[in-house]
Amino acid sequence: MPFARNAWYVAALPAEVTDKPLGRKLLGEPIVLYRTPEGTVAALLDLCPHRFAPLSMGMLVGGHLQCPYHGLEFDGAGRCTLNPHGNGARPASLNVRAFPTVERDDLVWIWMGEAADADPALIPDYSCRIAAGRRTIGGHMRVDCNYRLLVDNLMDLGHAQYVHRANAQSDAFDRVEREVVAEDRCIQNLMKLPGGSPTVFVSKFLDVGNQTVDLWNDIRWYPVSAMLNFIAFAISGTPKEESMNSMGTHIVTPETDESCHYFYGASRNFAIDDLRVDDDFRAWQRQALLIEDKPMVEAIEGLRAVIARHALKPAMLACDEAAVRVSRRIDAMERETA
Amino acid sequence: MPFARNAWYVAALPAEVTDKPLGRKLLGEPIVLYRTPEGTVAALLDLCPHRFAPLSMGMLVGGHLQCPYHGLEFDGAGRCTLNPHGNGARPASLNVRAFPTVERDDLVWIWMGEAADADPALIPDYSCRIAAGRRTIGGHMRVDCNYRLLVDNLMDLGHAQYVHRANAQSDAFDRVEREVVAEDRCIQNLMKLPGGSPTVFVSKFLDVGNQTVDLWNDIRWYPVSAMLNFIAFAISGTPKEESMNSMGTHIVTPETDESCHYFYGASRNFAIDDLRVDDDFRAWQRQALLIEDKPMVEAIEGLRAVIARHALKPAMLACDEAAVRVSRRIDAMERETA
Amino acid sequence: MPFARNAWYVAALPAEVTDKPLGRKLLGEPIVLYRTPEGTVAALLDLCPHRFAPLSMGMLVGGHLQCPYHGLEFDGAGRCTLNPHGNGARPASLNVRAFPTVERDDLVWIWMGEAADADPALIPDYSCRIAAGRRTIGGHMRVDCNYRLLVDNLMDLGHAQYVHRANAQSDAFDRVEREVVAEDRCIQNLMKLPGGSPTVFVSKFLDVGNQTVDLWNDIRWYPVSAMLNFIAFAISGTPKEESMNSMGTHIVTPETDESCHYFYGASRNFAIDDLRVDDDFRAWQRQALLIEDKPMVEAIEGLRAVIARHALKPAMLACDEAAVRVSRRIDAMERETA
Repeated sequence: MPFARNAWYVAALPAEVTDKPLGRKLLGEPIVLYRTPEGTVAALLDLCPHRFAPLSMGMLVGGHLQCPYHGLEFDGAGRCTLNPHGNGARPASLNVRAFPTVERDDLVWIWMGEAADADPALIPDYSCRIAAGRRTIGGHMRVDCNYRLLVDNLMDLGHAQYVHRANAQSDAFDRVEREVVAEDRCIQNLMKLPGGSPTVFVSKFLDVGNQTVDLWNDIRWYPVSAMLNFIAFAISGTPKEESMNSMGTHIVTPETDESCHYFYGASRNFAIDDLRVDDDFRAWQRQALLIEDKPMVEAIEGLRAVIARHALKPAMLACDEAAVRVSRRIDAMERETA
Repeated sequence: MPFARNAWYVAALPAEVTDKPLGRKLLGEPIVLYRTPEGTVAALLDLCPHRFAPLSMGMLVGGHLQCPYHGLEFDGAGRCTLNPHGNGARPASLNVRAFPTVERDDLVWIWMGEAADADPALIPDYSCRIAAGRRTIGGHMRVDCNYRLLVDNLMDLGHAQYVHRANAQSDAFDRVEREVVAEDRCIQNLMKLPGGSPTVFVSKFLDVGNQTVDLWNDIRWYPVSAMLNFIAFAISGTPKEESMNSMGTHIVTPETDESCHYFYGASRNFAIDDLRVDDDFRAWQRQALLIEDKPMVEAIEGLRAVIARHALKPAMLACDEAAVRVSRRIDAMERETA
Repeated sequence: MPFARNAWYVAALPAEVTDKPLGRKLLGEPIVLYRTPEGTVAALLDLCPHRFAPLSMGMLVGGHLQCPYHGLEFDGAGRCTLNPHGNGARPASLNVRAFPTVERDDLVWIWMGEAADADPALIPDYSCRIAAGRRTIGGHMRVDCNYRLLVDNLMDLGHAQYVHRANAQSDAFDRVEREVVAEDRCIQNLMKLPGGSPTVFVSKFLDVGNQTVDLWNDIRWYPVSAMLNFIAFAISGTPKEESMNSMGTHIVTPETDESCHYFYGASRNFAIDDLRVDDDFRAWQRQALLIEDKPMVEAIEGLRAVIARHALKPAMLACDEAAVRVSRRIDAMERETA
């Protein structure tokens, strides 16, 4: 599995990481995540060097992770701290690989490549998730497709009016203004949909009367598969800065070659104390991601053997420019690792 | 998968093909079938050339098939008729492969090979299914075995007295008269079982009293895997032409290398207005095909890896002559494609 | 699958083998087991030489096994005794492979290698299972792991205080006296745990008061994967010969490369007429084997692809000496067959 390893990925939401070890496959590797008594997140390869038992089936004992099979214990750096058998020798072969982690912006990031290269400055900014003046609703789900199908899905929201037609259709899609901006570690797909009918979703929050709305949809990609999706709307003519908007977390982490983890969220700047609006966002995420997007990308994953057998190449459309640029970047990063 | 592609296969029963697209795998290929507003059956490769979404997840819009992902539209010949993105360009790369179909004898036939070679005259005659004076009961089911195991099963009904012993046992099997007739595009296995006890199935429809019955069982094979099974019975001495009989549809279409579609039917020439006899035939088909034959051929499929590992060859019996001849024909047709 | 074939394996418990054919996969081969009218156990390759139908779907007819598909019949030596088709010829190609079996000690042993080498004297002694003065409780279960993971599990019971902590924890593990004895066809791991607190399990049967107990745990391995586990306990200072003890049957037979059959039993020398103690042993076996050991070895099996990808070698501990010696013996036996 030629994943780009020298990169930060989201491993979990902080609330998932507790003193009960969590086993999770990331980039094809079994990883055990747990919170040390000091509160930091430990991430170890999830197999004991002795008989390969999954450490995630074990438990914390005195702050150390105890192997469930023969009782070896490990600290958060992967060092074996106790061998209860024989003379208790602890050669280096009893240590287990540990992975750097960073807890930031209500996300747990992990570095699966060379530990020496793990520079936290490379982690993209998701401070919107914890910003004052915003309210974030989100979660985690598994999707049974290669992670790149979700990156393709997200990097062009031209699918919104079809896949999400019940909530996201607007006549403004016909006159979308699009700009693609490629920077060193970021590719942006900037879209403005001026003077259109409000979508069902927008109508929930904005009383348009007989006026039209302007919609903005700016999605940024950061390596390898972290996206930040700015969605804004306002009565036509209102400056973008005064819009009602939501910063969308859409971060995908490979689980296996055929499945991935999807960490999602929406950080809105309006009605932040209104629990019913929380529910609206929960309902929208369930509908759009679980009910609409997930079956689509999983169906495409199911056709993978057919696509490979016929050596089919996707026929790119005008709206795919950003997706194509992102795809080339990921290709290059994967080649680097291989 | 070395299927013989230059041939007609049954893709569906006409009633299955409507304005709701039907996704079905045939010869390893994903196919979408739907009925156009003109009433003809369209068959396209079931993946959009853009991002490979299954078109069968889409819907008909203005008589065209709309991709569920980004809204491209296609006509029944596979031509892209609408690209709603950018300048709406429709290069040839946006067309999808279409397959010739023929709707005939209450069956939908498809040609998966070179379209230029698709000659409807090669479709075998199943007009018994819609003939005046006959009544047809039948259906479609999936079977989890390579299609050739079902061809083997059907080309010798010597299994009837064992697999179908509850309904089809007769002492006449001991004196079966058999003839195999090989023609250019047809192989026949003709069997007469003279002067025997009536089977349970025959007894339902014919009051034999203390006489014996003559049974006929003539099965015809047409390339690649379409069989027509004539079963007749009468008080011993009655001419075959005056028998009560049923023309059996037994058509198998590969789905994958390890599974197939089975289109079956029985077109009887007696009691054609009697609904209770319809029920008798439904019960018989469920019992014989679903309960008795299907587990047998699926169990053999389950042994395939073992058979291959030991390089086992079937030990042929006298009753297998027709099956062996058919098998050689299919071998040759598969080699032609490969 | 490079199993050691020239060896005796347990195929079934005698009670499982009746006049209803039993299909069971052993060493990757489908085998049908049944009891002949003479009471002996027949073991044939479970596929008919004609069309490869599983003979285990058939039934005994006149003491012979009838193929469920076309009615060929076979005797316990695999010879075709009836061909009901055509002239009834029975060439040698209609015979099916038979395997030597021995029913002994309430176990059915099978020899999957060269029949000429099948020497019953090589079968290890499990007469404890039927000995006067002992009472045996046991059973059979499938485990979804390679059989060698269970051999590793059993050859060192250092895992007991972790995996089976609820019932088997004792402070005596800290001062275990261990001896490994390697003989020609037997490797023994002899352990004594002197002067410890009684385990929960021991406390059920022995009123210790404020004294300590001595525990013995001697496990013997016989090729390829038959183990006999002697567990004894007594008030400290009591001679081993006067202990309360149980001879444990732990025999593993490969089913496939990724799964195995586990035949287990405990033959105790105390309370042999007490049905409630039978229940205690049943509860212990369910807890220790099904609830505790099985998920552990199956989880390790699930990591096999990861272990192979990283070419990981187990880091052996002091307590693994016997397991390592056994592992080398099995390696050699598997190489011999390959």
